[in-house]
Amino acid sequence: MWLYAASSLEFNVVVETPFLMMLRPRSGTQQWVSREQYVMSPNASPVEFTDPFGNLCQRLVAPPGRFSVRTSVDIEVADAYDVAPGAPFVEVQNLPDETLPFLLPSRFCEADRFTQLSASLVGGCNPGYDQCMAIVDYIKRTVIYTPGQGQEIISACEVNGRNQGVCRDMAHLGIACCRALSIPARLVVGYLDQLEPMDLHAWFEAYVGGRWYTFDPTQNNPNGGRVAIAYGRDAADVAVYTQFGEPVELLSLDVTVERRSAPPS
Amino acid sequence: MWLYAASSLEFNVVVETPFLMMLRPRSGTQQWVSREQYVMSPNASPVEFTDPFGNLCQRLVAPPGRFSVRTSVDIEVADAYDVAPGAPFVEVQNLPDETLPFLLPSRFCEADRFTQLSASLVGGCNPGYDQCMAIVDYIKRTVIYTPGQGQEIISACEVNGRNQGVCRDMAHLGIACCRALSIPARLVVGYLDQLEPMDLHAWFEAYVGGRWYTFDPTQNNPNGGRVAIAYGRDAADVAVYTQFGEPVELLSLDVTVERRSAPPS
Amino acid sequence: MWLYAASSLEFNVVVETPFLMMLRPRSGTQQWVSREQYVMSPNASPVEFTDPFGNLCQRLVAPPGRFSVRTSVDIEVADAYDVAPGAPFVEVQNLPDETLPFLLPSRFCEADRFTQLSASLVGGCNPGYDQCMAIVDYIKRTVIYTPGQGQEIISACEVNGRNQGVCRDMAHLGIACCRALSIPARLVVGYLDQLEPMDLHAWFEAYVGGRWYTFDPTQNNPNGGRVAIAYGRDAADVAVYTQFGEPVELLSLDVTVERRSAPPS
Amino acid sequence: MWLYAASSLEFNVVVETPFLMMLRPRSGTQQWVSREQYVMSPNASPVEFTDPFGNLCQRLVAPPGRFSVRTSVDIEVADAYDVAPGAPFVEVQNLPDETLPFLLPSRFCEADRFTQLSASLVGGCNPGYDQCMAIVDYIKRTVIYTPGQGQEIISACEVNGRNQGVCRDMAHLGIACCRALSIPARLVVGYLDQLEPMDLHAWFEAYVGGRWYTFDPTQNNPNGGRVAIAYGRDAADVAVYTQFGEPVELLSLDVTVERRSAPPS
Repeated sequence: MWLYAASSLEFNVVVETPFLMMLRPRSGTQQWVSREQYVMSPNASPVEFTDPFGNLCQRLVAPPGRFSVRTSVDIEVADAYDVAPGAPFVEVQNLPDETLPFLLPSRFCEADRFTQLSASLVGGCNPGYDQCMAIVDYIKRTVIYTPGQGQEIISACEVNGRNQGVCRDMAHLGIACCRALSIPARLVVGYLDQLEPMDLHAWFEAYVGGRWYTFDPTQNNPNGGRVAIAYGRDAADVAVYTQFGEPVELLSLDVTVERRSAPPS
Repeated sequence: MWLYAASSLEFNVVVETPFLMMLRPRSGTQQWVSREQYVMSPNASPVEFTDPFGNLCQRLVAPPGRFSVRTSVDIEVADAYDVAPGAPFVEVQNLPDETLPFLLPSRFCEADRFTQLSASLVGGCNPGYDQCMAIVDYIKRTVIYTPGQGQEIISACEVNGRNQGVCRDMAHLGIACCRALSIPARLVVGYLDQLEPMDLHAWFEAYVGGRWYTFDPTQNNPNGGRVAIAYGRDAADVAVYTQFGEPVELLSLDVTVERRSAPPS
Repeated sequence: MWLYAASSLEFNVVVETPFLMMLRPRSGTQQWVSREQYVMSPNASPVEFTDPFGNLCQRLVAPPGRFSVRTSVDIEVADAYDVAPGAPFVEVQNLPDETLPFLLPSRFCEADRFTQLSASLVGGCNPGYDQCMAIVDYIKRTVIYTPGQGQEIISACEVNGRNQGVCRDMAHLGIACCRALSIPARLVVGYLDQLEPMDLHAWFEAYVGGRWYTFDPTQNNPNGGRVAIAYGRDAADVAVYTQFGEPVELLSLDVTVERRSAPPS
Repeated sequence: MWLYAASSLEFNVVVETPFLMMLRPRSGTQQWVSREQYVMSPNASPVEFTDPFGNLCQRLVAPPGRFSVRTSVDIEVADAYDVAPGAPFVEVQNLPDETLPFLLPSRFCEADRFTQLSASLVGGCNPGYDQCMAIVDYIKRTVIYTPGQGQEIISACEVNGRNQGVCRDMAHLGIACCRALSIPARLVVGYLDQLEPMDLHAWFEAYVGGRWYTFDPTQNNPNGGRVAIAYGRDAADVAVYTQFGEPVELLSLDVTVERRSAPPS
């Protein structure tokens, strides 16, 4: 399907402030960027670079006053994400090199502390995809999805002790549990068509059966309409924006996702 | 300055044909991509990757029949390119690692065969930028710029034996001569505002004084309005399109570059 | 100076166990590897890859029984590490791209929670190197170096609440404080000549004045004789070994560092 | 099998001369470096970097006088290289990204000029491995292997017009023909056990059936005992040494390869 997706951020900047931004989706697996736009007001002469995870990042210094960033994309994505019950576990020695960083504990996914929990959740499952599903089921059972309540980023251990969380929290918990089983797992930040309420979204991917598969503990169906903006080990790697120096006030963050019947021409 | 730049290619495809394309400028030194579009007709489900030189490439299989690719970009670029008479030669041992591949002979720039010629051209010059200028002067003196005559790609050795050439030929000769002096040099393919007749363009960059500088033997002024689409060792690395299998007919290639008074909004 | 440095690890393996190892120093800034050896017993057909931080890693499956890894290196390193009081802070917008991942909070360096502490420590310092020194002074004043007590990896927040720590803990605290000031900082795991008691060591580097500088809160002098084995954001990235599956018993870890009067021949 | 392989180069240097060297094999597919040594006399404080093809390169400035470089390696390699008659051609659109640079024409492999010859050689073959074998047969039939006669590097077009060549020439011809069929092909420089007369060797690899396969037009059997030192598009990428400035005299190049019954300990 074709989607139009857009983000609009507005800040109140007091002194010149350096920012790192990550709001520019790239073409990749099951997504093709046909049109893409990135506008700052006032224009802030950004510089782009690619981070170690392949994400396109922008660096800029925001001038004092109102500062806005608006990005949009016309993109072709899959109607549904692939599911693969029974897809087998990949032995660590057979994993592609580039998946290995996603096996290690990270800032918000303390995988080493989930060994027991993970083992208890997947008893009787075939190693691999089915284990990931058992983990997702556990998250759905125990964490109530409460979008919009996630100002502070909490870690998988903290999420596990609460009974509610935002998309990012639920994904962090899933990632930590997968890694505890030696299954590479990574966070995806992006857009999701039909999300209610509309916002930026986060889910996770796990590497089983020889490829990355999508898992989203906040949704009941393998609904596509997903635009990956950035991949990382957890939210520490993929903040949509990071600012340095004196705190800057975010006045608004508006997200739009619309289906389009045809590609732009 | 803000530019709108666009390419439109139309092919007559007889059988399903794989293509590699390189028509998507990225933000980089002195260029910021604000809006960018890439449309195929019919849509051919391309896949993107980044080549070893950092260029964004598209892979696709064109279906039989008329097949067109149209790309466009709104981009901020410099009004003029930097010149730096006297910028010093960088000793090989002090060159950044990433410049070293651009010291070696390559397909169309047989640097090893230009040792004597280069030495004769730069007698009395300060090593570095001034040597590059002496090389450019030699090219301007001896090769008449004849745009539109360059169907077949010829090498620097072949260019040097003729008295005319296209932009790419003149750049290849400049690159080979620079490398013969142990100055890293690379080819740039891109857009140039006000080019007559309008077409895709090629020039070269040499690494002196601690950075890459632009040299364009086809032009008399350091005119900016340049959009780099791709960088490489020579034209073998940066073909705008490469097709595999049975030859496909290129019906048309149209290029547009226009100045804009303001960024897109 | 020339050093001979060696590590010997012995494990008791119950079932076939996949390992990730990071015990192979590479030539780099101020270190040149002249001779290097890596022996497993029994031989386990390892495969090497380079992680996102440039570290050389080995993957292998250890067979049941006693399994040992012995590595050694003859290497030329600096006699002392560079110090640079007054080296200036680099504005975020001017940092090299590759330093940016080292600005973000990571697993064991929760930089975002050190904003107030860091600010209080560096009052009156010139931004840059002198701030890093003030942080190191704070660590030396408040954390007693207790080598050999660091089985469990704790985070900078946890270190800060205790009054003792191992080299890694003290480095984590330094890294978190530097990042809180927008100074990139990274962990180094390696060898240190004359370390008492001899063991693998950890310190940190901060990026000020246009390059990485070494800081070691466990030492009173800028003593060289350092071999960097691996770089990372924190200990999560640079475990000397990571094993997957059933826990494996480490029977012994022996480290040797000796000065040599001449390179091997 | 375990091999000991060593190279010794001696130069007569008149003025300080920068060198690029490529003499340090890395662990990789079917080769594990257990011990490795690199000694210069006098010591020249080299700096290492990794080129775009993953080769480990050394940069150094050789002082005036006799200058020698001696490298050696203890390495485990395969007894024979894999052969796979019938392994299928991989459609261009399905090739891994990293193979694509090896489809393009390069300095010494003018693939675009071999379309007709290649087509004529492979008539009736199954696309893929069998085509590569037909190309190798053609090379064996038409080019007499004359080791030791290859001072000047010539291109595939030039090789094809002669009736003799060195290993590198024969590999270049094979590479150009493979690429003309849209089969990725790359040059390998390395050691070969039992080579007569002993010297550095070159062969090529082609990507068919989902992986790289070895082809060596100079040999009659798929004999292993091969150590890959460097990979590249052709000899322009993988010179064992490149020197800059005034020509330096190579006084001697000695190569040793010996089988060992066991790994070093």
